[in-house]
This record gives sequence, C-alpha cells and structure tokens, in this order.
Amino acid sequence: MSIITIVGAGMMGSAMSIPAADNGHEVRIVGSPLDREIIDRVKQDGYHITLKRQLPSVIKYYQVEEIGEALENCDLLIGGVSSFGVEWFGEAVLPGIPKSLPVLSVTKGLQALPDGTLIAIPDYLAAKPGCDGLSLNAVGGPCISFELADRHDTVVAFCGHDMDDLVKIKNMLSTDYYHINLSDDVIGVETAVAMKNAYALGVSLAIGLAESKNGIGCKEEYNQQAGLFAQSTREMYRLLKIAGGKEEQILYGAGDLYVTVFGGRTRKIGTLLGRGLTFEQALDELRGVTLESVAITKVVIEALMKMEAAGKVDIRQFPLLMHIYDMITDKTTVNVPWKCFEE
Amino acid sequence: MSIITIVGAGMMGSAMSIPAADNGHEVRIVGSPLDREIIDRVKQDGYHITLKRQLPSVIKYYQVEEIGEALENCDLLIGGVSSFGVEWFGEAVLPGIPKSLPVLSVTKGLQALPDGTLIAIPDYLAAKPGCDGLSLNAVGGPCISFELADRHDTVVAFCGHDMDDLVKIKNMLSTDYYHINLSDDVIGVETAVAMKNAYALGVSLAIGLAESKNGIGCKEEYNQQAGLFAQSTREMYRLLKIAGGKEEQILYGAGDLYVTVFGGRTRKIGTLLGRGLTFEQALDELRGVTLESVAITKVVIEALMKMEAAGKVDIRQFPLLMHIYDMITDKTTVNVPWKCFEE
Repeated sequence: MSIITIVGAGMMGSAMSIPAADNGHEVRIVGSPLDREIIDRVKQDGYHITLKRQLPSVIKYYQVEEIGEALENCDLLIGGVSSFGVEWFGEAVLPGIPKSLPVLSVTKGLQALPDGTLIAIPDYLAAKPGCDGLSLNAVGGPCISFELADRHDTVVAFCGHDMDDLVKIKNMLSTDYYHINLSDDVIGVETAVAMKNAYALGVSLAIGLAESKNGIGCKEEYNQQAGLFAQSTREMYRLLKIAGGKEEQILYGAGDLYVTVFGGRTRKIGTLLGRGLTFEQALDELRGVTLESVAITKVVIEALMKMEAAGKVDIRQFPLLMHIYDMITDKTTVNVPWKCFEE
Repeated sequence: MSIITIVGAGMMGSAMSIPAADNGHEVRIVGSPLDREIIDRVKQDGYHITLKRQLPSVIKYYQVEEIGEALENCDLLIGGVSSFGVEWFGEAVLPGIPKSLPVLSVTKGLQALPDGTLIAIPDYLAAKPGCDGLSLNAVGGPCISFELADRHDTVVAFCGHDMDDLVKIKNMLSTDYYHINLSDDVIGVETAVAMKNAYALGVSLAIGLAESKNGIGCKEEYNQQAGLFAQSTREMYRLLKIAGGKEEQILYGAGDLYVTVFGGRTRKIGTLLGRGLTFEQALDELRGVTLESVAITKVVIEALMKMEAAGKVDIRQFPLLMHIYDMITDKTTVNVPWKCFEE
C-alpha cells in the first residue's frame, strides 16, 4: 500500500481519490486556498459539496496550512488544481517536495513561450524555480469527475517523460473501471486534451444557433454540431503537428471533445454565444464561473499569431478557433464561417 | 442550369434534391426497384414518405422502368442507393450511361478484394463490366438526410480521382447551407466515413450498458461513451493507414461518427446489444431493418483477418471492432474489452 496525497479538492482532484482508495491506498486530500469550504464539510461528514458525493470514510482531509503533514511520507502527489491554480501549485507546493516524489497533474491547459511555442503544463511547471528534476506527469482523456466518482468505466492517458514512473503511477491507480493508457508524448496528449475546452465551445454554438431559430430548449439538431465537430478535429490535428505532438493523439482530443460537449460550463457558454449574445452578455449569465475554454483559446490564438508573424504557420488554417477568439474578445457575435471550412 | 438525375429515392438520395433544386437545376428522381411506393406517392403530391418531407414542386419523378427518359441529356447522375443497392446500381444503371456523365454516389461502404485489400465504392464500381472510364465520385461527411432536406448547415466532402470533375459537381450543388470539401483521397475519405457505421454501434453499446444498470430510457452517461469514441477514433485512424488513405481524413470519421451516434438504426442496434441481448434477439426487435453497421464490420474484420494471415496487420490493434464482430456473429454478448484499450 502507498500513500497518495491530492492537492486541490475540486471535483476532478477529489474524484481521483476513488480509484486511489479502492486500491487500498492511504488517501489524503488537501484543499487549495480556494477549497476551504469543501474541506470544512468533508472533515465533518465526508460529503463533498461540489462533487455532490459521499467520499469513502478512509480518506483524510487537510486545510492548506496542514499541507506539510499531508505530504509526509507520501508516494504520489496528485495535483488537483484547475488551470487557474497552476501558478500557486507550481510556486507554493512543488518546490517543497522531495525530488523522488512523482507528481500527476489533472490540470488541463497549455502555456506559450514569448515566441509562441506551446508548452504543456508539466513542462511549464518543470521550468519554475525549485521544480527542476521533479517527475511531472499529467492525466488526459475523456473523464467527467462525477462519473469517475461513481466508478463508471473511464479511459484516460497518463503522460510523462519517464515511462518507469508512469508505470508506477498506473499501478497505484488502475482499477477495473479506471483504464489507463501511457504515453511519453506529453505535448501531444496535452495539446489534444487542452484544446477540447475551446472546441467544445465551438460545437456548442450549434445548440444556440438551433435555439435562436426554434426556441430555447428545442430539440437538438446534429448536422451543424457534427460539421463543427469535424472542423474541430481538423484544427486539433493541425495544432498537434504545430505543437510537436504525435498526430495519433487526436484520439484523446476527439474523445475529450465528445465528453465536454455534453456537460458543464463550456457547453453553456457556447450555447449562449450561439444564440447570438455578445461575450459580455454571456458572461453576465454565467457570473462567477471560470472559463477554461476562454483561457485556452486566448493562449493558443495569440501564440499562433506570433508564429504566423514569424512565417511559421498560416492562421487561416484555424477559422473556427479564430471565430471563437473573435467572439470572446468581443469583436463579433456568432457567425460561423462555414465557407472557410471548405477545402 | 443543368439537369441532375438522382437514381435511388431513399432518404439520402432524395435529400440531395434540395440543394440541387435550390440552385435552379432541373432535378429528376428515379426510384430503384425497392422505391416503388415512394415514387407512387411523390408523383401524386410531392410528399416523400420516408423522408417525411414535402419536396419542391419542380422535381420530376420516375419509376425504375422510366430510367431511360430520366437520364436523357442529364449533366450529373447522383447514385442514391444504400450499400445494399450497390450491385444493382453498378450492373443495371452505370453500364448504360455515357462516359462523359459524372457520377456522385452517396453510398457508404467498403468492399474487399480476395486478399483483403480494402477498396472504396467508386473504385469497386469502376471495376464492373462496362464501367471503366466513368467519372465515379462519392460523398462523405456528417449528414442526416432530414436535416439537409431542412437546409441546415451541413459540411461534407466530395471525393474522386479527377479534381476538375469534383469542382464541376461542387458548383452544381454548393449552397449557402451545403458546404463541400473536395478531396482526391478516395480511399481515405471513404474508409473514414464507412467505418462510422460500425463504430457508432460500438459507442452506442454504452447507452445499453447504462440502461442495463439504471433502467431503459435512463439518463445518459458519458465516460463510457467517450472512452468508446476515443477508441473508435484510434481504430479508424489505424484503418486509414492500412487502407492507404491519408490519416488527416480522420476528421470525417470523427464527424460522421458523432452524427451517427445520435440517430437511427445503428444507435438502436448498439443500444440493444449493450443491454446484453444476443444479436439474434436484437435483430428480432429490429425486424426488417437493413444494417450497414453489421455489413461493414464483417467486410472489414474478415479483410483484416486475411491481412493478418499474410503477416500484414495485427488484428489485436482493433479490439473494439473485433468485439462488435464477435457480437454480430453471435459468438458473445456485450463485454467491452476495456483493458485491451490500454496501451
């Protein structure tokens, strides 16, 4: 048995406690500074207020100031923060851990260097002060946190640069419902899965387009959604090449896009924009919600613009992502550039 | 203005009449021997009984014995038969047409040569007696016939070996809602779109699996569906390579798979098998329905077996398609090989 410490008590980080606990490990969940309320409640009676599930009674909980205790003798650190918590995780948590402690991050996102080169979160973290030499790995692939918590069959990929570490982490977390691929193509897997947030917004536009014609809550129509899904797959495939990943990782992009279209905030913002709302109006309806789809679109389009200025890419190869960017920077409302999809 | 003759009055063939008529062409629809009832009714009042739509009044209708008249002076022949009508189309229709008349086929499917080599429908037809020298082209990409008939934005690909012919056909059919990519990668586009029928059955298994746990008609769950979607994308990508297509055509496979999961017979059979029914029991519930998903799975697995015997492929790279094959040949009921998806 091992000791697994999860830092970040959001939905996905906390859901990872289920396969970990089912495998008999000691599991410790540490809240980030934003998770105080979640930890207060699970400490009381094990009920997770955002995951809306009772967690196994064997799990131990810690507020952020108790993190030292939570990390004692642990064998795996799971980073459970969203892309908005990644700076905190890389600056306040990682520099303090032993180099021998492998890290698995659930954070999805990409960062760009000043010249537009895209880098995956594990490599971005590795470059932070005090983080060199750490074994930084990440999870990609389609997974709704609720469903993992309910032990539904879930197929994911763990990626990292050291296959031995990946095998070790897989052995700790693999169960009869949690199915884990391994890959050392970090930028490939992470590019594919980070882009799904942007493109799920793109596919969801069709829901709002149908609603603006047939009324809110109308029956869904699929030719538009599928046309946007195909164009999303094309653009993700191209971006994989540009980022330096293997094109075969498109499977994670497609799978993750599929699952993201069906739920949550990204579908909601895409639907609102598809109805013809301005971005400002859409944000008003979603007050207080953080939007990874918006963040990743900005990072990637702005990186592509730099690469285009250097003569390295033709940004017209990304008409859908560009349209999303134009909407979220309030340059336009929805007007899907269908004819730009023709090649 | 041109004259466009559609042979095969099923749903997809007939839906193609909408962009054709909207562009002001003379449109003629000819029933196959199986479409007598459809043609009888549209001749009366223009109502298409399977598409469930009133067709534009300018369209002319012909029973199969009137096909000669329907083909007179026409500029484009659209083959509107399903894969089960392809022999009839290739033997009774194509040999009689002028070599200068371009053909666009909506039929999705693959055929295999005795050694297992996969060939696309246009190339299969070209090899039939009297068909050499014809310009045989095909449509792929996500399209529900109802929605095209209702003029929803629809993104497809026309593929063929002569780009000039493809441009000519696109000019006849392109509208502000029908968006047409062109490709000379016939085997690539056709492999991607033919496989979607098989894999939509695979993804739909998850619907039945959830139902067998939570009751028929239960809320859908997505981790399983998305895991199967990702594995489908992986296997389609591999098959593209094996068939000799360009891997980038995966976009049509993914888009077409997305749209097929949401509707019709393939979702139904997948759901029934996912509930644990034997194939025989599932067929009982679907009496009289032709199943392209079953046909394409048999063609491709049996071709892969031959290629494996010749040392050219490793069939274990297709665990999901193999499981579908085992179900439809009544060797097993559902038991998704999740662990075989881990690599």
